[in-house]
Amino acid sequence: MSKPGTKPVASGHHKRFVREIPDGDDRSRLVCGDCGFIQYENPVVVVGSVATWEDRILLCRRAIPPRKGFWTLPAGYLELHESAAEGALREAWEEARARLEIEQLLAVYSIPRLSQIQLIFRAHLLSADVAAGPETAELSLFTWDDIPWDEIAFPSVHWALGHFQEMRGQTGFAPRSNPPGEFGELAAEIE
Amino acid sequence: MSKPGTKPVASGHHKRFVREIPDGDDRSRLVCGDCGFIQYENPVVVVGSVATWEDRILLCRRAIPPRKGFWTLPAGYLELHESAAEGALREAWEEARARLEIEQLLAVYSIPRLSQIQLIFRAHLLSADVAAGPETAELSLFTWDDIPWDEIAFPSVHWALGHFQEMRGQTGFAPRSNPPGEFGELAAEIE
Repeated sequence: MSKPGTKPVASGHHKRFVREIPDGDDRSRLVCGDCGFIQYENPVVVVGSVATWEDRILLCRRAIPPRKGFWTLPAGYLELHESAAEGALREAWEEARARLEIEQLLAVYSIPRLSQIQLIFRAHLLSADVAAGPETAELSLFTWDDIPWDEIAFPSVHWALGHFQEMRGQTGFAPRSNPPGEFGELAAEIE
Repeated sequence: MSKPGTKPVASGHHKRFVREIPDGDDRSRLVCGDCGFIQYENPVVVVGSVATWEDRILLCRRAIPPRKGFWTLPAGYLELHESAAEGALREAWEEARARLEIEQLLAVYSIPRLSQIQLIFRAHLLSADVAAGPETAELSLFTWDDIPWDEIAFPSVHWALGHFQEMRGQTGFAPRSNPPGEFGELAAEIE
């Protein structure tokens, strides 16, 4: 779903930066040892969709790490100057050449380990004419029973699919959030 | 390392950064002219609350720019490794020494000009014992009719108050989003 490998935020910083608490602040920040510039590290926003054609759900098999070869929703990092909905539509196009109509916000997930906020929409495809984008190895429209549950890329994809199913046929509902006690930790073998 | 024709970035960034499109990317990024480090610029997440005590709404008069002296909701930037709800609770404490219980997500606003996603919760105060934090000049619990409408800090505060009023007494609703055609532009006189 998200691509933490492609967009370093909390790590992979400029080599001149040192970590210290600036005057008047109460948290450790990255400060340039040369010029004093403070590099604030912010959480990132992931936008995506559970997108359907009739009763089938669009999933994409990842062509890139992390979790290459596993199935995910069309989703990715929100870019600058985008609305959340615009970002979700762009990601569906980039990853699946899919044109969507957004129905409503399905879920807001917080992944504190990755400092991610995920905004996942429920949407429907305007056409079944989809095709793999550069970060997608293949894609498919799955009926619920055919979803490859053992090859799902991330915990939040499981959550979103489950919440989609829970809310199927309902409208005007409050968006779902993390299942109780779950924070998107990956099992050790897939870190 | 920097390509001919790239311009040093004037302000708000590390002074060694230049703006260019990295190999394999399709957008302009900030790249360190010394070491090639790519400084991705990401949208930011604002978390906040319309928080009530009985039928009164908590507003804070800003002690700092922008819009110093104007009234706002307890809200601010999500920090690393926080959930959205944790961030909203922290901001209520920092700005108003308020302890809240979150009821549900009231609204998700996109402010493309500022690359902001705002997650605004509906919440209630666990006690009327509130006090101004360092970024707050004063605060008050306003009845709807007493809200200082002419001294509201930001368009999204207007939206959130209006959406709170619209949804008063309702539960399990889909969160509101930007009013049609509104993107959080400030009028010229308050830019």
